[in-house]
Amino acid sequence: MSKESNIENIRHSLSHLLAAAILKKYPDTKLGIGPTIETGFYYDFLFAKPINEEDLAEFEKEIKSLINKNLDFKSEEITSAAAKKLLKDQPFKLELIAELSKEKSPISIYRTGDVFTDLCRGPHVKNTKEINPDAFKLTHIAGAYWKGNEKNPMLTRIYGLAFNTKKELDEYILMMEEAKKRDHRELGKKFELFTFSEEIGQGLPIWLPNGTIIKDEIENLAKEKESAEGYQRVSTPIITKEDLFIKSGHLPHYKESMYAPMDIDGENYYLKPMNCPFHHTIYSSKPRSYRELPLRLAEYGLCHRYEKSGELQGLMRVRSLSMNDAHIYVRPDQVRDEIKKVIELHEYYYKLFGIKKAKYRLSLHDKKELGKKYFDMPEAWKENEQILREVLQDLKVDFYEAENEAAFYGPKIDIQIYSIIGKEYTLGTVQLDFAQPQRFNLKYIDENGKEVMPYVIHRAPLSTHERFIGFLIEHYAGAFPTWLSPVQAIILPISEKVNNYAKEISDSLISSGVRVKIDDSNETLGKKIRGAEMKKIPYILVVGEKEAQAGTIAVRRYGKGDLGAQNIKKFTEEITAEIKNRV
Amino acid sequence: MSKESNIENIRHSLSHLLAAAILKKYPDTKLGIGPTIETGFYYDFLFAKPINEEDLAEFEKEIKSLINKNLDFKSEEITSAAAKKLLKDQPFKLELIAELSKEKSPISIYRTGDVFTDLCRGPHVKNTKEINPDAFKLTHIAGAYWKGNEKNPMLTRIYGLAFNTKKELDEYILMMEEAKKRDHRELGKKFELFTFSEEIGQGLPIWLPNGTIIKDEIENLAKEKESAEGYQRVSTPIITKEDLFIKSGHLPHYKESMYAPMDIDGENYYLKPMNCPFHHTIYSSKPRSYRELPLRLAEYGLCHRYEKSGELQGLMRVRSLSMNDAHIYVRPDQVRDEIKKVIELHEYYYKLFGIKKAKYRLSLHDKKELGKKYFDMPEAWKENEQILREVLQDLKVDFYEAENEAAFYGPKIDIQIYSIIGKEYTLGTVQLDFAQPQRFNLKYIDENGKEVMPYVIHRAPLSTHERFIGFLIEHYAGAFPTWLSPVQAIILPISEKVNNYAKEISDSLISSGVRVKIDDSNETLGKKIRGAEMKKIPYILVVGEKEAQAGTIAVRRYGKGDLGAQNIKKFTEEITAEIKNRV
Repeated sequence: MSKESNIENIRHSLSHLLAAAILKKYPDTKLGIGPTIETGFYYDFLFAKPINEEDLAEFEKEIKSLINKNLDFKSEEITSAAAKKLLKDQPFKLELIAELSKEKSPISIYRTGDVFTDLCRGPHVKNTKEINPDAFKLTHIAGAYWKGNEKNPMLTRIYGLAFNTKKELDEYILMMEEAKKRDHRELGKKFELFTFSEEIGQGLPIWLPNGTIIKDEIENLAKEKESAEGYQRVSTPIITKEDLFIKSGHLPHYKESMYAPMDIDGENYYLKPMNCPFHHTIYSSKPRSYRELPLRLAEYGLCHRYEKSGELQGLMRVRSLSMNDAHIYVRPDQVRDEIKKVIELHEYYYKLFGIKKAKYRLSLHDKKELGKKYFDMPEAWKENEQILREVLQDLKVDFYEAENEAAFYGPKIDIQIYSIIGKEYTLGTVQLDFAQPQRFNLKYIDENGKEVMPYVIHRAPLSTHERFIGFLIEHYAGAFPTWLSPVQAIILPISEKVNNYAKEISDSLISSGVRVKIDDSNETLGKKIRGAEMKKIPYILVVGEKEAQAGTIAVRRYGKGDLGAQNIKKFTEEITAEIKNRV
Repeated sequence: MSKESNIENIRHSLSHLLAAAILKKYPDTKLGIGPTIETGFYYDFLFAKPINEEDLAEFEKEIKSLINKNLDFKSEEITSAAAKKLLKDQPFKLELIAELSKEKSPISIYRTGDVFTDLCRGPHVKNTKEINPDAFKLTHIAGAYWKGNEKNPMLTRIYGLAFNTKKELDEYILMMEEAKKRDHRELGKKFELFTFSEEIGQGLPIWLPNGTIIKDEIENLAKEKESAEGYQRVSTPIITKEDLFIKSGHLPHYKESMYAPMDIDGENYYLKPMNCPFHHTIYSSKPRSYRELPLRLAEYGLCHRYEKSGELQGLMRVRSLSMNDAHIYVRPDQVRDEIKKVIELHEYYYKLFGIKKAKYRLSLHDKKELGKKYFDMPEAWKENEQILREVLQDLKVDFYEAENEAAFYGPKIDIQIYSIIGKEYTLGTVQLDFAQPQRFNLKYIDENGKEVMPYVIHRAPLSTHERFIGFLIEHYAGAFPTWLSPVQAIILPISEKVNNYAKEISDSLISSGVRVKIDDSNETLGKKIRGAEMKKIPYILVVGEKEAQAGTIAVRRYGKGDLGAQNIKKFTEEITAEIKNRV
């Protein structure tokens, strides 16, 4: 058993120990379920009287004492009747037992020593001595409906973290505390990057001037890179008759993520949830020759997806999103080169943004599911999965494979990236598509004059503006590199006498393309400096009479402090190079 | 009587002469109405049997002979009974007489000599000798429902042009022929700039790669200019709950131009037809000080407006449009400076695009309509109309005033521009707004700490991408200046031997930011050159072995011809300067 799966068992066993601890203190508590989650576990309870987070320390202590008793976890398969008898005081468990009986599934229970028995399929640790009592922590409580259905009773969910070592636990807690300070919703407000309006609607971000600068800079970056890589930009409507999405198969399969239709001239129009069918329309707007491929159509397309209001979260989960989208139409013999270029583009961006860790997951089909879960082109799957695998190997990126996790239309590569503090984000996906070209009857004329179907690669390395900027805010904690900073330099004149000099410098920097402000308020210099540092402005330029006479500026760099007096020409050269090279 | 109004009378009189000519040849024709239009006149007829355009020459001849008879036009007021008797064979006229009687309006007729009598209010020429028989022309026929209602009979409309002189007529005809060749719909297809798709929907342009380049270049121009003028860019949602448009007054007043609502979580959401309320939301997202004004919020906002399908026309009338929008929030004492800057910006763009003629119309209120047709702020109207007038005078632009033509919320300046061939386009409008700040409760804190309402200036000098690019296509007839051209230079290698050299030059130009293509097809050089000239590519660069050895290129400039051999470095400097300076 690998360490990875053992930690899963530890987490699962801890959820049982939590339930045991709860029942010891409050025997009339009703038990929900207790699964593992990414970094720990939870258990849902219906308490006779409310508990609060201060109580968690006591439960934690009890769990530790249970661990130290070296209790065995043992499973047993029993009859439905026996299970009902055993758990007769637990109505939610009885409900589950009834369901299992109905579907004629075996019923198994897990005993923890003689202190606790739960309806459970496992697996668990063999003995609680496998659990490190210093490497877990109960963190918080929350409300959760039984089975996630708001018609059911509201239970109390107790969350816990669990790792193999105390060091891992401490690091994770530290990371989460740091992540909280970096919450993009808070920093977005503080730095006036974006806002929402009740009057306009939930999940519809309004980009304020500072945020729009960042959005435009990222869009310029994408345009520059994509242009260098031979992409062609297009711009397509954001609404369409339903016909297009019927043809693409989004209606009805994806309908629940789409907005309600609008009636125009008696026809149903939809806001687009994705750009693909529009790009296919452009592809097929004229006959294509093999010489034109790969044809790379790129667009920062504005899409709308319906998300439940409870699931909206800052910029991370929104209803309107601008996607760094492109579709690459390739001949089958071009898949390797194009996928390679696309992965290299991802790696380029990661390096640029100081993203040190990225995990690639190659999702494969299962041949048993061909023609059902997967589009039925057995050879194409086999061949191209191997190509994708080899590309990831050649590029030496950190990747793993996931069987039976591909998209319906082809194999895909999903990427998880980690911010400076180690928080994980799912932002990228690269997908190879055999199915849509067929639905849209896409063709090219090959060297022999024959009509052949291309494949399509979907990619969006910079994700959506919303998620990516959300990520960047947390990644940089608002201290953006100079090229992304809404204000790149602020000039602080020491007295009114040098206001003209400050204006001169400002004009000169602006004409070199630097985003500059002057703070000529009546505050003290110290206060002005602190204000600028709070705003994490990359350069603070202090000017007094000495500087005015010498034609210099006193430069302070955010995070580095005082760099001393500099000649304005030299400073301009340096800051513009830093901006141009996106240092 | 000015010449302008006399030409109106001439046109109106010609419509009567046309009817007289028709009745002479087909006495049982039923008459509709015969008004003037911008450059001429028309008359609607119900013919007993169909006519076609070849017949127009004959009617033209008959009209000329009527003109040469020096017939008087004389009006007379008569009773309803007399009118009915006089026009007893004309059912449409009888319908009009009945309506006039019902509203108790006076009934007047016009007699043309003794050859024709029509129900008409005039005015007309006194005698046909005022009409130049060589300065009019019947141009075409079209179908038109009686009173524009499709439930009524379809009549045949005969159109005519009329001017004071034959020269004006000929020039106009020439211009229209030239305009037809420049039709942006045809050129848009030919140069692959944009397309439409039946499957996506009418009036929703799809920008192809070439068109997207032009769109992006214009957007870059706007961003650059606006940034230099102190605008701040924002980016706002394209849908909103109905609340926002109820507050703004668009619902219900503007509802017929809006798309049908979408239901999201039980609330009505609309696609935005304009950006103003979103910018007002940003304005009021925090308290504003007088020091922040003028606050200029700019956005190439994507709006949707419902237009009847029959009224859609290429890029000129569409359903989705990207507007060069901005809202400037000003203190009342800043109106003059800001309006001046805005008009100067218009003039700057006109010069840049070689637009030699622009007519400004200052639309004023009527104080009798205050509180009804016009927002009730008498002093603000008076004062600011005078300011706008003075700005137009100071800037010495060609302007005229239109009484009682202002917007509800304030005075406005509409601008008509003329393309190189003299075709007229309405693209620009600058509006001062007293009403929306009140509806949105916009405020700023003045120097004395008092809350004051700002005014808003609406402006969109580059119109929408759709209309403006439609205009530019026709203006340039597809021969765009280098900075706007989708392909700026094409390299034609004479033989395969110099393909590498061609590639070298191409790479070098691309790295300098020039959009270059290579035509290494197997066609003859002559055919390649003609092909590139058909595409109106600004620079054709021919390279053979001689050029490869000398490190030069043979340059042909579109519209200028052969410029001879040039050194690649010098050429790069020149073309990049031309692009950068938007020559």
